[in-house]
Amino acid sequence: MVERLYSFIGGSHGAWIVTGQTTITGEPLTNIQRIEIVNGPHSSDGTTTEQWCLQGVTSNERYVTRDEKRLLSESQPTLGRPNATCAALIPIRKNPSWWTMAQDERREILEANSLHIKTGMQYLPAIARRLHHCRDLTGLQPFDFLTWFEFAPQHEGDFEQLLLKLRATQEWSFIDREIDIRLVRS
Amino acid sequence: MVERLYSFIGGSHGAWIVTGQTTITGEPLTNIQRIEIVNGPHSSDGTTTEQWCLQGVTSNERYVTRDEKRLLSESQPTLGRPNATCAALIPIRKNPSWWTMAQDERREILEANSLHIKTGMQYLPAIARRLHHCRDLTGLQPFDFLTWFEFAPQHEGDFEQLLLKLRATQEWSFIDREIDIRLVRS
Repeated sequence: MVERLYSFIGGSHGAWIVTGQTTITGEPLTNIQRIEIVNGPHSSDGTTTEQWCLQGVTSNERYVTRDEKRLLSESQPTLGRPNATCAALIPIRKNPSWWTMAQDERREILEANSLHIKTGMQYLPAIARRLHHCRDLTGLQPFDFLTWFEFAPQHEGDFEQLLLKLRATQEWSFIDREIDIRLVRS
Repeated sequence: MVERLYSFIGGSHGAWIVTGQTTITGEPLTNIQRIEIVNGPHSSDGTTTEQWCLQGVTSNERYVTRDEKRLLSESQPTLGRPNATCAALIPIRKNPSWWTMAQDERREILEANSLHIKTGMQYLPAIARRLHHCRDLTGLQPFDFLTWFEFAPQHEGDFEQLLLKLRATQEWSFIDREIDIRLVRS
């Protein structure tokens, strides 16, 4: 298995307790109580209470320029900070119109029009983030991206603000399925 | 399984007969007599003479701009033309330096410095091409890309010229494994 593979197992086990699960766009996902995150594949052992398993791989940046990458690397925190006891898993899918666009068209919408990278940077280092790509995995996935966020309880308001800004962008008009799952570390 | 998945099964069965197999860079791949191409997954049935199976998915363009995409769509031929009885499968892997670069750095090397897209266009519509991405599949793959080319026998010289030009570029200095497999339709 590729080392960059992560499995997000939704059910009643795992280190992260679900505090809220909201369908923003499209078909809902079965409600769950906890999420377990595994760096690797996951095969159900039949005894678990797993409801679903979402998989994705971390990969090379698709839009970030060298200047943005330098700025990000200066302020991007790592996951697993002791005080970052709040988390969010936001799986999204983009529609076919997005995927048939050329690279420069997608970059223009993502950054020139929607300021996706710049907006995210405003919330560093408070909000840690890891992006997982699902679209080119071998098995058909229900989402294109899984983004995992971690932050301290006092930054929950900042996180809401970040999501409000992103969801108001042109880029978000291409998203046809989005679930917002909030969690706290057990 | 994702519909865009293709399996290239190397062994002694299949519609394409190997006429040459050359290791350009890095570790060789076991020599084979034929290749079978399956649009989908492949599980060995134990009775085949399969030596290896390389998998990849077609995906969205990673570098092509809207103008390049329009030009390509005007002259790109489809696979399976009756007179295109020659083919090549060229699996390549790029080194970690390539993958840690930002998007604009990779685009600059690929097109501004190496004219990868422009050079390919010079050989259209003679040479048909389908690119498969391997790096973000669930299972670890030995290559990052599999490119499949089809052309008529009278364009074999053009194809050699295309490869010579690409292999002389800055982009190719990031390739640490490349195998060149030539085939004819059986």
